[in-house]
Amino acid sequence: MTRFKATISYDGSDFAGFQEQPGRRTVQSEIEKVLQKLNSGKELKLWMAGRTDSGVHACGQVIHFDLEDPRPVERIRFALDTQTPADISIWKLEVVASDFHARFTPHEKIYEYLLDNSVSRSPFKRRSQAWFRYRLDLGLMQEAASKIVGTHDFEGFTAAGGSVKDKVRTISLATVEKIDESSFRFRFRGSGFLYKQVRNMVGTLIKIGNGKFPVDQIDKILSTGNRHFAGPTAHPEGLYLKEVIYNEDRK
Amino acid sequence: MTRFKATISYDGSDFAGFQEQPGRRTVQSEIEKVLQKLNSGKELKLWMAGRTDSGVHACGQVIHFDLEDPRPVERIRFALDTQTPADISIWKLEVVASDFHARFTPHEKIYEYLLDNSVSRSPFKRRSQAWFRYRLDLGLMQEAASKIVGTHDFEGFTAAGGSVKDKVRTISLATVEKIDESSFRFRFRGSGFLYKQVRNMVGTLIKIGNGKFPVDQIDKILSTGNRHFAGPTAHPEGLYLKEVIYNEDRK
Repeated sequence: MTRFKATISYDGSDFAGFQEQPGRRTVQSEIEKVLQKLNSGKELKLWMAGRTDSGVHACGQVIHFDLEDPRPVERIRFALDTQTPADISIWKLEVVASDFHARFTPHEKIYEYLLDNSVSRSPFKRRSQAWFRYRLDLGLMQEAASKIVGTHDFEGFTAAGGSVKDKVRTISLATVEKIDESSFRFRFRGSGFLYKQVRNMVGTLIKIGNGKFPVDQIDKILSTGNRHFAGPTAHPEGLYLKEVIYNEDRK
Repeated sequence: MTRFKATISYDGSDFAGFQEQPGRRTVQSEIEKVLQKLNSGKELKLWMAGRTDSGVHACGQVIHFDLEDPRPVERIRFALDTQTPADISIWKLEVVASDFHARFTPHEKIYEYLLDNSVSRSPFKRRSQAWFRYRLDLGLMQEAASKIVGTHDFEGFTAAGGSVKDKVRTISLATVEKIDESSFRFRFRGSGFLYKQVRNMVGTLIKIGNGKFPVDQIDKILSTGNRHFAGPTAHPEGLYLKEVIYNEDRK
């Protein structure tokens, strides 16, 4: 048995999310189909660093899986990359210790959110960026984002009905930048994120940037834990799981 | 009658080209459907600066059309922009003199071609850039591109079977740049282009960059007019009609 760690990208537009679901096209099922061929036809499971929802993209999702007959790493990577559909790319593959686990080995994740803020939506950005046509103030969004940094109970930023009890998480980075004349990039780094937390934070920052909420709406959401004070969940096409950084790689 | 000039963008991926064709989804037919509604249900024709083929994009295609009842320009632009599908954007609209003609008023066009030169094709670039996985030498491609500039008979760079007799055209600009760690941008400016000329020039430059043709293959193609000396037609997904510059606007 050899354990492999793969770093992958995918365009989430045409997937019902990462995780396997009966009868739906998912990233996991497309990759497992190819892995089974490479595993002499025997079924096998892969593990991912983090699930992504329907329509959400990844540039640096990490998965792991075990194969019985090891072959040269580049040959396996090439087979996986070329046999999976064009909206999935397997761009890095490494052999790792058998106790590595994509999900349970401690790590931080970086999420990015891209937003097209032009009056007329660009046809070239419609699958890769969300769109908000009204005025946005960069300074207000930056000030509000800085209030997210730290260890907080993020109850007010998660979707109702999640099974996780402890909603305390640490966000070490939360920034907003302008990347061209009409696009904004939001970036968040942390050791764990709740269900829809990033999209709810972005939805709230957009309302603040548009002047519909004051900057200290963030404090109100964090202190009350009340989802109703937060903005709407931002659309999935702007969200990217950008990078997964394992603590053991940082030694 | 009021004549309108519109500047439009479209993602060509899901169109059978710009020009109307029975039973196919084209940019022209999608826009004419909406124009007819704005024209009190009366059919009308639009004219475009240049046809684009199936899969080819535009950032700055220019069209013109006439409407009987003039309304505020921004209201018409907004209606056209929002009622056309998401892969078409009408981002600029102006009233022009009744003798303006998108195609026959003298102009120059700028075409751009984007090429992803990474080993593993990016899922995010697969609709917006062509892909070539092997090594490309920027310097060789730049040297070869400079040989294209000037007034030449471009017979050897056009597809067979075109109806145009005179194949002499003037290219005032032909450049190749690296725009990020793995992407190249080719740019061509001229007063007229032959059928598939840009894609055939790019296909030839790629062969030169990969060392399969010498740099002076360009001279050979221009002097003999023989299509067989040129490279294959480059894929449509990398090509953009970037800008149309009318001579009268430059006064």
